Amino acid sequence: MDELRNHIEEITPVSDEEFAYIKTFFTKKKIKKHQYLVQNGDKVLCEYWIIKGTLRAFYINKDGKEHILQFAIKNWWISDYNAYFNQTEASINIICMEDAEILCLTLYAREKLASELHKMEHFFRMKLTLLYSSQQKRIISLLSDNPKERYEKFASYYPTILQKIPKKYIAEYLGVCRETLSRLYLNN
Amino acid sequence: MDELRNHIEEITPVSDEEFAYIKTFFTKKKIKKHQYLVQNGDKVLCEYWIIKGTLRAFYINKDGKEHILQFAIKNWWISDYNAYFNQTEASINIICMEDAEILCLTLYAREKLASELHKMEHFFRMKLTLLYSSQQKRIISLLSDNPKERYEKFASYYPTILQKIPKKYIAEYLGVCRETLSRLYLNN
Repeated sequence: MDELRNHIEEITPVSDEEFAYIKTFFTKKKIKKHQYLVQNGDKVLCEYWIIKGTLRAFYINKDGKEHILQFAIKNWWISDYNAYFNQTEASINIICMEDAEILCLTLYAREKLASELHKMEHFFRMKLTLLYSSQQKRIISLLSDNPKERYEKFASYYPTILQKIPKKYIAEYLGVCRETLSRLYLNN
Repeated sequence: MDELRNHIEEITPVSDEEFAYIKTFFTKKKIKKHQYLVQNGDKVLCEYWIIKGTLRAFYINKDGKEHILQFAIKNWWISDYNAYFNQTEASINIICMEDAEILCLTLYAREKLASELHKMEHFFRMKLTLLYSSQQKRIISLLSDNPKERYEKFASYYPTILQKIPKKYIAEYLGVCRETLSRLYLNN
């Protein structure tokens, strides 16, 4: 759990005693490649923090087309946040792309932790702030950028993801076709 | 400032003494129709809470096309959050569509308030949670919905906005053409 402590301490320092308490709220889980962590229609009980592995969250529209919302690698958080925060059924899927180890946090645990420890309330607020900022950038990019600009922004914001994830999925995330993406890769 | 207290108390109760302190962090401002609250390239010093009036946040791409990110009416918050949280220059514009009265909160004031009052840290976290959830819905809608579906979802999530904002801007927000939107209005 040391990685989790480092991750929290990027935002706020915690004492040994506090961290000993914080970690009691998390449950460790291993998941295999191709296994679903969340499936459309499930109750979403947890958000997940990735110790190792790669996951992707995607939405399938009524025509069966997959649209990728998010990737998650080591040190990232993932869930169907809409369903998690509202305790409703998932509208998206989250699948494991590479054997993973994760920490699970229920909403009840998250709220208890935030309520008991002001610094954890702060930690969760700051994580949300970063997520919200990156979502704003994605909305602007989806609304107004052409494929080349989308690719270039993605490559500059997420160089590690670009190296780890097959091109097929990057193309889906960016909403561009695979051939266009291959051309962009070749030109960079 | 009573409306602000009601707004905060939708999430967490505050005592008279606490609210007397909280309101010292906000500054009231009046802005006129057509006036810019934030302009692309400005430093973004504040986030804004709307007492009355209507505003819209939009991005102008390199071809001069406007893309709407958000509307804000009474009781809503608005800013260029990306620039506000990172204290960088605005990449978007926020304009007043109808004479408005707003409360301004600097990032320094926001962080001080959150750090001194755990319940305000909680308030800001919960507001961000709601914003993040609604952004997730918007990204899914932009990626996968056709114009009719986008319009229907928007109408069900934001019926008040639909009544207050000219169709031209709703069409821009949804990324659909005006003629399509007019047909959808007529059919509903």
